[in-house]
Amino acid sequence: MLLVKVGGGAAINWEDISKDLVNLLKKKKIIIVHGANAKRDEIALRLGHPTKIITAPSGVQSVYTDKNAIDILTMVYAGLINTQIVARMQSVGINAVGLSGVDGRLWQGKRKKILYEKVGVKTKIVKDTFTGRVEKINTKLIKLLVKNNFVPVICAPAISYQSEIINVDNDWAVAVMAQALKVREMVILFEAPGMLKNYKDAKSITKNIKKDEINKFMDYAEGRMKKKLIGVRHALGHGVKKIYFGDGRVENPISLALSGRGTILS
Amino acid sequence: MLLVKVGGGAAINWEDISKDLVNLLKKKKIIIVHGANAKRDEIALRLGHPTKIITAPSGVQSVYTDKNAIDILTMVYAGLINTQIVARMQSVGINAVGLSGVDGRLWQGKRKKILYEKVGVKTKIVKDTFTGRVEKINTKLIKLLVKNNFVPVICAPAISYQSEIINVDNDWAVAVMAQALKVREMVILFEAPGMLKNYKDAKSITKNIKKDEINKFMDYAEGRMKKKLIGVRHALGHGVKKIYFGDGRVENPISLALSGRGTILS
Repeated sequence: MLLVKVGGGAAINWEDISKDLVNLLKKKKIIIVHGANAKRDEIALRLGHPTKIITAPSGVQSVYTDKNAIDILTMVYAGLINTQIVARMQSVGINAVGLSGVDGRLWQGKRKKILYEKVGVKTKIVKDTFTGRVEKINTKLIKLLVKNNFVPVICAPAISYQSEIINVDNDWAVAVMAQALKVREMVILFEAPGMLKNYKDAKSITKNIKKDEINKFMDYAEGRMKKKLIGVRHALGHGVKKIYFGDGRVENPISLALSGRGTILS
Repeated sequence: MLLVKVGGGAAINWEDISKDLVNLLKKKKIIIVHGANAKRDEIALRLGHPTKIITAPSGVQSVYTDKNAIDILTMVYAGLINTQIVARMQSVGINAVGLSGVDGRLWQGKRKKILYEKVGVKTKIVKDTFTGRVEKINTKLIKLLVKNNFVPVICAPAISYQSEIINVDNDWAVAVMAQALKVREMVILFEAPGMLKNYKDAKSITKNIKKDEINKFMDYAEGRMKKKLIGVRHALGHGVKKIYFGDGRVENPISLALSGRGTILS
C-alpha cells in the first residue's frame, strides 16, 4: 500500500496527479491525503476571518483555530477541495471516496487544552482553540474501502475523544496513519522539487537524506517544511522505509518522485 | 433498512435526532440524508453571492446554481454541515460516515444543459448552471458501509456522467435511492408537524395521505413542500410502502414520526 500526501498549495496539479494515479493503481493500492491551505486562506479572508498563524516557543508555526477558523477549515477541506479532488479522480475512472478525519473517527486525537505562543521574548498561553494531534486511526474503515477497490481521499479535520471537530497537523496525521496501516512507502508532494537547503533555489536540492540526518535539515526548513520533517522523522521511526518528496506541479508527479527525481528519505 | 431524510432548516434539532437514532439503530439499519439550505444561504450571503431562486414554468422553485453557488453548496453541505452531523452522531456512539453524492459516484445524474425560468408571463432560458437530477445510485458503497455497521450520512452535491459536481434536488435523490436500495420505509423530517393545508396553521395537518391523493395536495404545498411531494410520489410508485412526515424540531423526532404523530403517506 502506498500513501500519497499532497500539499494544499494553489499550484498543485491535480490533473496530472490523477492521471499518474490511474497507472499506479494498476499495480498497487493507494491512499491519498491532501491539504487545502491556499483555498482555506482565500475563503477565510473573504469571510472576514483571515487565517492567523501562531508560533510556538519551539519555532513551529501553526494556524490559530478558533470557532470561525475550524468552521472555515471544515468547509474548505472536507467540503470544497475534497469533493473537487474526488470528482477529478472520478473523471479519469478512479473510484475515489472522500473522507475527513471525523468520518468513522478516522483520525482521532486529544484536543489541546492550551497552546503556547511565542510573542517577542515572552510566551503567551492560548486557550479555547480547536486543535489537537492525531493519535488513533480507524484502520478498519480505510481497509474496508481499499479492499473493495475504492480509493480513499482523506483530509482534515480530525475528531477529538470528546467528538469535537479539531484542526490537526496533516503531516503528523499521515505519519501516524502510515504506522497504523503498516505502510512502507510514502510520497509527499508539494510546491518545490524536493528538500531544498535554500527554499528559493531549486538547485540546492538534497537527493538523499538518512533518518539520522533529519534533525540537521530542520535548520534549513522554512514554515511548513519543518512540520513535514517532524512527520517524516516519526514515520521513519515507526515502520516506514522510504519517503519520497516530490514536486506536485509537474507531469507524472508521483512516478517521478518514486523514481528519485526529488528527495528520498530513508 | 430505514431511510431518514432531514431538512436543512436552522431549527432542526440534531441533538435529539441523534439520541433517537441510538435506540432505533438497535433494531434496524439506517441511512441518513440531510440538507443544509439555511447555513448555505447564510454563507452565500456572507461571501457576497446570495442564493438566487428561480421558478420554473411549472411553478417549482429551485436554486440558481452558477459556479459560485455550486462551490458554496459543496463547502456547506459536504463540508461544514455533513461533518458537524457526523461529529454529533459520533458523540453519542453512532459510527457515522459522511458522504456526498460525488463520493464513489453515489448520486449520479445528467447535468441539465438548459433550465427554463418563468419571468412574469415570459419563459427565459437559463444556461451554464451546475444542476441536474439524480438517476443512478452506487448501492455497492452504501451497502458495504451499512453491512459493516457504519451509518452513512449523505448529502448533495451529486456527480454528473461527465464527473461535474452538480446541485440536485435532495427529495428526488432520496426517492431514487430508496428505489435502488429497495427501501420500504422512509422518514422525512422538516420544520413543521406534518403535511399542512395551511402552512401557517399547525392544526391544518392531514394525518394520512394515499398515493392517489398526492396530486391534490400539490395545491396546498408551498416552496420546498412541492418538491417533497414530487419525491414522495415517485418513491411510493417505486417500492416504498410508507413515508412518515415528521417534525425535526422535537424530541424523539423519528420515533414520533414512525408512530404516526405527523403525516403518513402510503
